[in-house]
Amino acid sequence: TGLVHVNNPHLGTMEEDVLYHLDLGTKTHDLPAMFGDIKFVCVGGSPDRMRAFAQLMQEELGLAGAGQELADACAGPGRYAMYRVGPVLAVSHGMGIPSISIMLHELIKLLHHAKCRDVTIIRIGTSGGLGIEAGSVVITDMALDSSFRPRLEQVVLDDVVVRSTELDKDLARELLACSKDLPDFPTLIGHTMCTYDFYEGQGRLDGALCSFSSEKKLEYLKRAYDAGVRNIEMESAALAALCGLCGLRGESC
Amino acid sequence: TGLVHVNNPHLGTMEEDVLYHLDLGTKTHDLPAMFGDIKFVCVGGSPDRMRAFAQLMQEELGLAGAGQELADACAGPGRYAMYRVGPVLAVSHGMGIPSISIMLHELIKLLHHAKCRDVTIIRIGTSGGLGIEAGSVVITDMALDSSFRPRLEQVVLDDVVVRSTELDKDLARELLACSKDLPDFPTLIGHTMCTYDFYEGQGRLDGALCSFSSEKKLEYLKRAYDAGVRNIEMESAALAALCGLCGLRGESC
Repeated sequence: TGLVHVNNPHLGTMEEDVLYHLDLGTKTHDLPAMFGDIKFVCVGGSPDRMRAFAQLMQEELGLAGAGQELADACAGPGRYAMYRVGPVLAVSHGMGIPSISIMLHELIKLLHHAKCRDVTIIRIGTSGGLGIEAGSVVITDMALDSSFRPRLEQVVLDDVVVRSTELDKDLARELLACSKDLPDFPTLIGHTMCTYDFYEGQGRLDGALCSFSSEKKLEYLKRAYDAGVRNIEMESAALAALCGLCGLRGESC
Repeated sequence: TGLVHVNNPHLGTMEEDVLYHLDLGTKTHDLPAMFGDIKFVCVGGSPDRMRAFAQLMQEELGLAGAGQELADACAGPGRYAMYRVGPVLAVSHGMGIPSISIMLHELIKLLHHAKCRDVTIIRIGTSGGLGIEAGSVVITDMALDSSFRPRLEQVVLDDVVVRSTELDKDLARELLACSKDLPDFPTLIGHTMCTYDFYEGQGRLDGALCSFSSEKKLEYLKRAYDAGVRNIEMESAALAALCGLCGLRGESC
């Protein structure tokens, strides 16, 4: 049916669902009217960039209101920013797996309550390239953890559940095909390493703490490259795991 | 000496240190002049709340400029917000351990480069109470993981390093003593559980995914309470571990 499904038997029995961090809810907002025709959700780290992206979409799609200030649908609590332009929703997710997970739980429920169909989610955030030309776009086929395994360990209460972090291969190929029209950006499909830490976890020598040598860092990054890693960031594993479990086409690039 | 120390032998050899996510750097900014007399750093999740807190501090400390708009020292990349009022620095950290860790790495380097002395860091973010009166303030004596252990597992390259998450006990007692002047807020010292996930990790029944029953949730939260947990949030373990390793007095409440 193309509908977004949630994997939670409790939701159907709740009188009201408050999407707390998005400042939206099923009793306070008419979610089907507001969001029912959304087809694409594009997510990235910072609110400013997502606003700029939404403005670009508005121009590219030839929508009315181009050049005017866009309203942030989640302005209240100031946790995330959300801009809607035509069939595209642009949402910020902050930094790291916990931050994007909160947003995705509430976004997926939003799409479910709004009865959206055939939705595609694409992360367009920043990442650090590994052994590739600066400015390249890496379309992720699978997110790897810091030991190069395609999995996310999710704590559920105090059990550890292991989830797949493979992304939609057809969507990856479609995006790669789109990239042929943009010769300025070298684009490739590759694995993405998703870490919990920016400094020690990604081999940086310039954090407040560093206990390893430059040689040890390079040896680790070489092992990552040999395992197929072409870029490193901090959110793709959560995106892959949650989209996979909720039947959403998702990609990170 | 009271100086903030970094545990990184590489930093001393670098010509320039760019605090990328804070939009500050050792060559672009005179950090000792800008921040050398900071004594208190208060951190919390959302930018808006930290601005409101800074404005409150400005009034409470009787500083000039009260009521005027405060400048955000990190406005450029829009990752974090930072407001300075007198000896107090208020900084937002977003949500989750990865997000606060990036900020703390760069903040600790900032305090180090600025030659600050005797700095106290206090997290004043939100949390969910466990078996206590709504509106209570919990001063954390130690941060526990989802298995109730006072530790943070930090991935360094692909090794897992275990770090202590005990906080400054003297500071906890000082803060508890301060609370005696504020009868409106029940205040206590207790353990804080710090999770990587807001929905499945904290036993919530209203995420996009939920695989456990209400009974199983309550049983888990009861075990947490019996282990001394009085509130749950998503950042205290990183604050405790990083402050401990860099010789900073830190608290979360």
